[in-house]
Amino acid sequence: MSRRKRHKRPPPGAPPGTLVADPSAPRPVISVIAYSSDECMEQTIQDTAALREYLDRWPVTWINVDGLGDVQTIARLADILDLHRLAVEDTVNTHQRAKVEHYRNHLFMVVHMATYENSLETEQLSLFLGKNFVVTFQEGRPGDPFKPVRERIRQAVGHVRQSGADHLAYCLIDAVIDGYFPVLETTGERLENLEDEILARPTGGTASRVHQIKRDLMTLRRTIWPLREAMNSLLRDPSPLVTDETRLYLRDCYDHTVRIIDFIETYRELGSDLMDLYLSSISQRMTEVMKVLTIIATIFIPLTFISSIYGMNFQTERSPWNMPELTWYLGYPFALSLMAAMAFGMLSYFRRKGWLGSPAEPLDKGEDRSAETDNRGKSSPSA
Amino acid sequence: MSRRKRHKRPPPGAPPGTLVADPSAPRPVISVIAYSSDECMEQTIQDTAALREYLDRWPVTWINVDGLGDVQTIARLADILDLHRLAVEDTVNTHQRAKVEHYRNHLFMVVHMATYENSLETEQLSLFLGKNFVVTFQEGRPGDPFKPVRERIRQAVGHVRQSGADHLAYCLIDAVIDGYFPVLETTGERLENLEDEILARPTGGTASRVHQIKRDLMTLRRTIWPLREAMNSLLRDPSPLVTDETRLYLRDCYDHTVRIIDFIETYRELGSDLMDLYLSSISQRMTEVMKVLTIIATIFIPLTFISSIYGMNFQTERSPWNMPELTWYLGYPFALSLMAAMAFGMLSYFRRKGWLGSPAEPLDKGEDRSAETDNRGKSSPSA
Amino acid sequence: MSRRKRHKRPPPGAPPGTLVADPSAPRPVISVIAYSSDECMEQTIQDTAALREYLDRWPVTWINVDGLGDVQTIARLADILDLHRLAVEDTVNTHQRAKVEHYRNHLFMVVHMATYENSLETEQLSLFLGKNFVVTFQEGRPGDPFKPVRERIRQAVGHVRQSGADHLAYCLIDAVIDGYFPVLETTGERLENLEDEILARPTGGTASRVHQIKRDLMTLRRTIWPLREAMNSLLRDPSPLVTDETRLYLRDCYDHTVRIIDFIETYRELGSDLMDLYLSSISQRMTEVMKVLTIIATIFIPLTFISSIYGMNFQTERSPWNMPELTWYLGYPFALSLMAAMAFGMLSYFRRKGWLGSPAEPLDKGEDRSAETDNRGKSSPSA
Amino acid sequence: MSRRKRHKRPPPGAPPGTLVADPSAPRPVISVIAYSSDECMEQTIQDTAALREYLDRWPVTWINVDGLGDVQTIARLADILDLHRLAVEDTVNTHQRAKVEHYRNHLFMVVHMATYENSLETEQLSLFLGKNFVVTFQEGRPGDPFKPVRERIRQAVGHVRQSGADHLAYCLIDAVIDGYFPVLETTGERLENLEDEILARPTGGTASRVHQIKRDLMTLRRTIWPLREAMNSLLRDPSPLVTDETRLYLRDCYDHTVRIIDFIETYRELGSDLMDLYLSSISQRMTEVMKVLTIIATIFIPLTFISSIYGMNFQTERSPWNMPELTWYLGYPFALSLMAAMAFGMLSYFRRKGWLGSPAEPLDKGEDRSAETDNRGKSSPSA
Amino acid sequence: MSRRKRHKRPPPGAPPGTLVADPSAPRPVISVIAYSSDECMEQTIQDTAALREYLDRWPVTWINVDGLGDVQTIARLADILDLHRLAVEDTVNTHQRAKVEHYRNHLFMVVHMATYENSLETEQLSLFLGKNFVVTFQEGRPGDPFKPVRERIRQAVGHVRQSGADHLAYCLIDAVIDGYFPVLETTGERLENLEDEILARPTGGTASRVHQIKRDLMTLRRTIWPLREAMNSLLRDPSPLVTDETRLYLRDCYDHTVRIIDFIETYRELGSDLMDLYLSSISQRMTEVMKVLTIIATIFIPLTFISSIYGMNFQTERSPWNMPELTWYLGYPFALSLMAAMAFGMLSYFRRKGWLGSPAEPLDKGEDRSAETDNRGKSSPSA
Repeated sequence: MSRRKRHKRPPPGAPPGTLVADPSAPRPVISVIAYSSDECMEQTIQDTAALREYLDRWPVTWINVDGLGDVQTIARLADILDLHRLAVEDTVNTHQRAKVEHYRNHLFMVVHMATYENSLETEQLSLFLGKNFVVTFQEGRPGDPFKPVRERIRQAVGHVRQSGADHLAYCLIDAVIDGYFPVLETTGERLENLEDEILARPTGGTASRVHQIKRDLMTLRRTIWPLREAMNSLLRDPSPLVTDETRLYLRDCYDHTVRIIDFIETYRELGSDLMDLYLSSISQRMTEVMKVLTIIATIFIPLTFISSIYGMNFQTERSPWNMPELTWYLGYPFALSLMAAMAFGMLSYFRRKGWLGSPAEPLDKGEDRSAETDNRGKSSPSA
Repeated sequence: MSRRKRHKRPPPGAPPGTLVADPSAPRPVISVIAYSSDECMEQTIQDTAALREYLDRWPVTWINVDGLGDVQTIARLADILDLHRLAVEDTVNTHQRAKVEHYRNHLFMVVHMATYENSLETEQLSLFLGKNFVVTFQEGRPGDPFKPVRERIRQAVGHVRQSGADHLAYCLIDAVIDGYFPVLETTGERLENLEDEILARPTGGTASRVHQIKRDLMTLRRTIWPLREAMNSLLRDPSPLVTDETRLYLRDCYDHTVRIIDFIETYRELGSDLMDLYLSSISQRMTEVMKVLTIIATIFIPLTFISSIYGMNFQTERSPWNMPELTWYLGYPFALSLMAAMAFGMLSYFRRKGWLGSPAEPLDKGEDRSAETDNRGKSSPSA
Repeated sequence: MSRRKRHKRPPPGAPPGTLVADPSAPRPVISVIAYSSDECMEQTIQDTAALREYLDRWPVTWINVDGLGDVQTIARLADILDLHRLAVEDTVNTHQRAKVEHYRNHLFMVVHMATYENSLETEQLSLFLGKNFVVTFQEGRPGDPFKPVRERIRQAVGHVRQSGADHLAYCLIDAVIDGYFPVLETTGERLENLEDEILARPTGGTASRVHQIKRDLMTLRRTIWPLREAMNSLLRDPSPLVTDETRLYLRDCYDHTVRIIDFIETYRELGSDLMDLYLSSISQRMTEVMKVLTIIATIFIPLTFISSIYGMNFQTERSPWNMPELTWYLGYPFALSLMAAMAFGMLSYFRRKGWLGSPAEPLDKGEDRSAETDNRGKSSPSA
Repeated sequence: MSRRKRHKRPPPGAPPGTLVADPSAPRPVISVIAYSSDECMEQTIQDTAALREYLDRWPVTWINVDGLGDVQTIARLADILDLHRLAVEDTVNTHQRAKVEHYRNHLFMVVHMATYENSLETEQLSLFLGKNFVVTFQEGRPGDPFKPVRERIRQAVGHVRQSGADHLAYCLIDAVIDGYFPVLETTGERLENLEDEILARPTGGTASRVHQIKRDLMTLRRTIWPLREAMNSLLRDPSPLVTDETRLYLRDCYDHTVRIIDFIETYRELGSDLMDLYLSSISQRMTEVMKVLTIIATIFIPLTFISSIYGMNFQTERSPWNMPELTWYLGYPFALSLMAAMAFGMLSYFRRKGWLGSPAEPLDKGEDRSAETDNRGKSSPSA
Repeated sequence: MSRRKRHKRPPPGAPPGTLVADPSAPRPVISVIAYSSDECMEQTIQDTAALREYLDRWPVTWINVDGLGDVQTIARLADILDLHRLAVEDTVNTHQRAKVEHYRNHLFMVVHMATYENSLETEQLSLFLGKNFVVTFQEGRPGDPFKPVRERIRQAVGHVRQSGADHLAYCLIDAVIDGYFPVLETTGERLENLEDEILARPTGGTASRVHQIKRDLMTLRRTIWPLREAMNSLLRDPSPLVTDETRLYLRDCYDHTVRIIDFIETYRELGSDLMDLYLSSISQRMTEVMKVLTIIATIFIPLTFISSIYGMNFQTERSPWNMPELTWYLGYPFALSLMAAMAFGMLSYFRRKGWLGSPAEPLDKGEDRSAETDNRGKSSPSA
């Protein structure tokens, strides 16, 4: 995978504006939706030339390109719409930070879409906003985040049909940003499951799962921080293409972005805290293991010593000093009593030190925990 | 819980301004207090239409809506008061960051109330400030933070009755912010209890309790940091709805917010330090356990070795080289003396290494600790 | 202690400007010093009315109120001097952040004094600077930080007698800030002692003492960071009450505050490093303990095994295969040699692994350490 | 190496502008490429005087100096092109931070090139941009990052031949910055390999390899952060030497720099996380080792104790109390049963505590891991 | 040392401008160098009055005061040169942060010099820059950082003799800042040595040595961060005393300061990483020790158990069930085979778990390490 990406990137020193298609990228599928407040027309086109007609006739045309595998088609499209070649290069080389760039007659924006199906996937969305058109380029992965927007246009829900291209751009960006919330919820659940696992019975894989979540959060963070800057510049920088009304809505998007960042940062901290909790849990278990070993060993080692003494073969008949206990009438009971006394002494020593009693108490899950469960719902993200 | 929230949030791509009620939210109860410097009238109303009369007649009308379970009622209310639909959407979707938004004829503010009863609970308060009205929306959880304010209006305590709607808004925000201090005090006590527990006798549950406090502090932090920004923008941004006199009072609120942040950050650090202290305490205990094991084992293992030697069955009669000690007159005392000498040597080695003496000294709680107790009171928060 | 504070704070929702005395606070003692460049008069007064005369007659009057236990007296004083009620409320509720507030005819400043006698104590100083007066409110704890200033006024040392009220205010603030340096020195010494303790012989109480210093530093930090902002605003914000000459002196105060912050941050890092050092020291000791155990156990366990073999009771007379060694002429010496060889082998294995030789080397305190001692003096704070 | 550098640096207190050649530096090789939109000429020159002719005749002259070992040649070159002596000093003393400096008639820029062949290498590139020339100084290490640019000039690819010196400078800077991406990819692969190693079988060298990557990332970070500032100042500061068209391209370079920083910071965090993962993996392994020891020891120690009891030599004939078991008909089976019962009891205790069953489960690499593999490709850098 | 400093500092509340000499400070030695572009005169003077003549006659006079032990002399000097008393106070109380202060007719600067001879030493340099003079106050420690500058003045190297007092001030500051680089190089070497020590054979003293370097870096950081601010303000703030030409040179000083900060921050991180590496190395060693113990113990404990069984004294003649093995013809070989089988089983279990084979592999120093060695030179600082 990483090898493919290396091949795709233009080699260092290539002239700017070079378009190099990723050979493994899917071929582009171009679908067009054009609408006025009264009508709405939808079509999947092959010939980019057909676009001119749309642009001339309809107040708003949305061209969605799904797949970046054919440089020629994209170049023709850019030609027709007069898109800047540097922006088009950034569209094809899908490794851009989120950003907003103002060109003479259009605005170029890069945003990333995130989905979580078994693993975290991000996909670059490049969006061009012109006077009467919006062009979106997706990498062509499965899934269509824009389905609800399409529905709203078709059924004239809300006032998207009454508004201009900038409102459509807002709707698309909004859909992308809202798409982060399910990902965050999944992440929140993964964290909760891990926390439960750590408190109940951590295994060797726990650490690597915590690590994996932290990696995902790093990836999310790297996509969302630049998005915040981009949204901010979209809000503040004057542009004739964005009306004040739309800016009001974009403020909402900006707020959502900041909330997503809040959650990511909180989750990142939680991830670190879980690692600490895991380490403390291992240490705790280790101490517990050691205590058991120590108790058993320190009780039996002295006992074994005593019994081994009376296993010595000094010849009692040679001298009255040689192990006279062996010949005592109550020698054996004496030895056993000695051992019992020693074991009892050890045990009371351990009890006094607090090693006995509840040596195996698991990480408690009492009232504090149940309280936490209620509370936890509060921190799950929603827009 | 987290599932419910997911259902409540409008799906990604929904048109802006969509009101979707959380099916589990309580139905709204609308209570109105209207007052002038002379009179004060209080009523719980069913029909939102009755509000128009209040607004026309009284200098200040405070409409408090407790519960967000009925979208129609809220929409009618918004209609009567001419509230912006984006703001109303944020009111119903109670997952907003604290913020202040300036609309044409009213100011919209989101604040969070925090309570701690067994667990930390936060609740969104949405506040609209108009020329002659204040509307507050609560999520409808038990407890009324505004009771003292109501009392002051009824009994004309302070100069709330002489002042306009902005002063009322200030009083409400002030009550919300002051509500954080008891939560902080509880948190401070939980931290102190945990510290005592760690120093005295840490259990497996200690780590998870520290973790829980750190989670609560993360939640508090996520609600209070945006509040600071919001208070700041309320103080600085010009608005015809807020008089300079009220701004002076709001500066006080801002100071309190900053003090709350100070405490949260300090507590967060304390939490991290407690985790460190806990880990060092476990390590210390582990070392102690190991020392006991090592001392017992290293004393008795050699002794047992000696006694096992004299338990060998080499036949003394076959050769004078075969265990002649067994036939000595003082063979047994000799062996015992050998063992005693060895044990004594080991013990003095351990004493020289400092392992004996006070091997089991608990975490000391001497003068430094008592000093700390005095000092600790100083760091408990109060407004 | 923390309970007392909770009672003292006005309940959430109380009207602003409410004065609630802490019942345990000492009753105020009001002492007045008034001076011109020629004369100086000093008096402890009971009746606040007497103040008017001072204010009319003397160019500079300094009213020092020690103890906040009588709300009426303080209210009367505020009345006479026309102090703003919000500022007076902040004076009585002694839980403010350091700050500077500009009111119409006076400037209000909150600063904290720190002392270290067995434990860290902080006390709020509220200072009002008017055209011809300075009022200071102390909480009334033992100790008078302003004694040298008083002396300088009495004996006309420096040019305090030639200057206005703002210079007096500067002198008082300067005395408060300089009071932090002895506290920092004590902290520095505590850190050095702890470092010596960790390097020499860490006990279970070491961790809790490091923790205690970190807590003290957190408290200091929480008092001093806002002070820096306050000093900065005092320096920059225009105010007719502060002359340019005094601002030049205040720059010095500001520099001292920044130096104090530098030291606190450095000490905080040192504290964290000490915790690390402590943990590494425990780990090191643990490893050492384990090595001793391992060496003793791995040497004697195989030896004991051999001797236990020759303690078996297989009947040599039944078969020549049954423990023929027992009947050898040199059976016993053979067994002992076997054991000696084994022990020697083990020992040389351990020596090759570097476990023997200097297994018990303490944390070295060689030349690097002595160098450090010299160096350490350099980092002790002085103004 | 570090000794050499110390000698090369002018001694403290040397007059500014002193040129001191590093004696071990290679002698400079000067190659010139001059071009107009129609023609292109390339030459390696010995005599710097020949340069004047180029500068007079060609619209753009690029002088590349490879090696800094001859101060005289460099000084002559600086003379001809009227380069500022402070800038020339910075060129020869190759330990500068990346920076842009505006001089009267030229712009001076320091950038660092990074390569990774077995180890990370950085090399300073000093670039002077004049009205009609670009001069680049390399330290003279093997490898030529500018080969593709040279090719583009020769073959008139892109519009470098149509543009001025500033565009050439952009191309060179772009080539340098793009050169960081292969280094980052290598680093990413090293991190992935280490992660696999830690999850599968960490050895003692793992920690030092993680440490080594962190060092490399620190070095990269120290070279790239100042570059960002430099690029920013190049973008923002007005300069007659840089056209607006070129600034548009430089914005692209700036974006790449920021992406590189993003990756470095992410990798740095990954590095720290790997260290944590490594430590948790060691702790986990330790606990596993301890469990095995504890299980074996606690099972056999009591058993051995019992058998050693029946190895005692109390004389059964002296008294019926002396080890009557020895004379029982089923004494031996009784003792064996006792041992078996004890062993069984211990085992079931351990099973109840969860120590048996899967005590040796390796760090799991299940579905979560395979998901991660897919995901990982996403975070590899490309421009 | 720290006691001395406490005595030296004016007590809290002392009037500003109080000069208190440190009784242990050396008596000042005043040396004067005056020069024009043609001549240069050098003298050590006793009588400060002689200075007036210099100031009247020479374009630039540099007065260097080495030692601060005589307040009267310094006060007289300040009088003659009309130095501000607050600045002079800061000169004598040598505990200032680096700073630049603009007074009416001179500029006051505090810088710190750092040297490393066995231990890190810092010394305050106070510098006054007037129209035609530079006064420098050193604390009077051994060593003269300004020797090369003196030489350059004497021998008219560079253009110091042609320039004004501000250029001289620049030269002195430059010499001080350049003096940090050897200190950094030493620190870099200490870090490398420690890294080698940790990788090869960490001892108990390693941690304390890492700690010591971190302390030194904290001290360096505390001196150099304010210096950066000071240099910045020197560069930006307009002052008639500093020409634009000199500002160009000061930019170079500023760059060096920033490079020093870069190195200090990198070294600080390296220090923290080394502590981590040390802890992981101890953990690794601990695990290794534990493995050896576990392997030996778990192999021999069961063997010993078997042999102790056959050491039991059950009387074989009483019953055929009592230890019939003892009377077998091949009883002893049977027992030995049993033990061998058990030992072999254990060993293969350990081999399968990967505990045998290379259990004692040291931290590897393979190709990755040698690469690192090359690379390391790159990060050593030079100006």
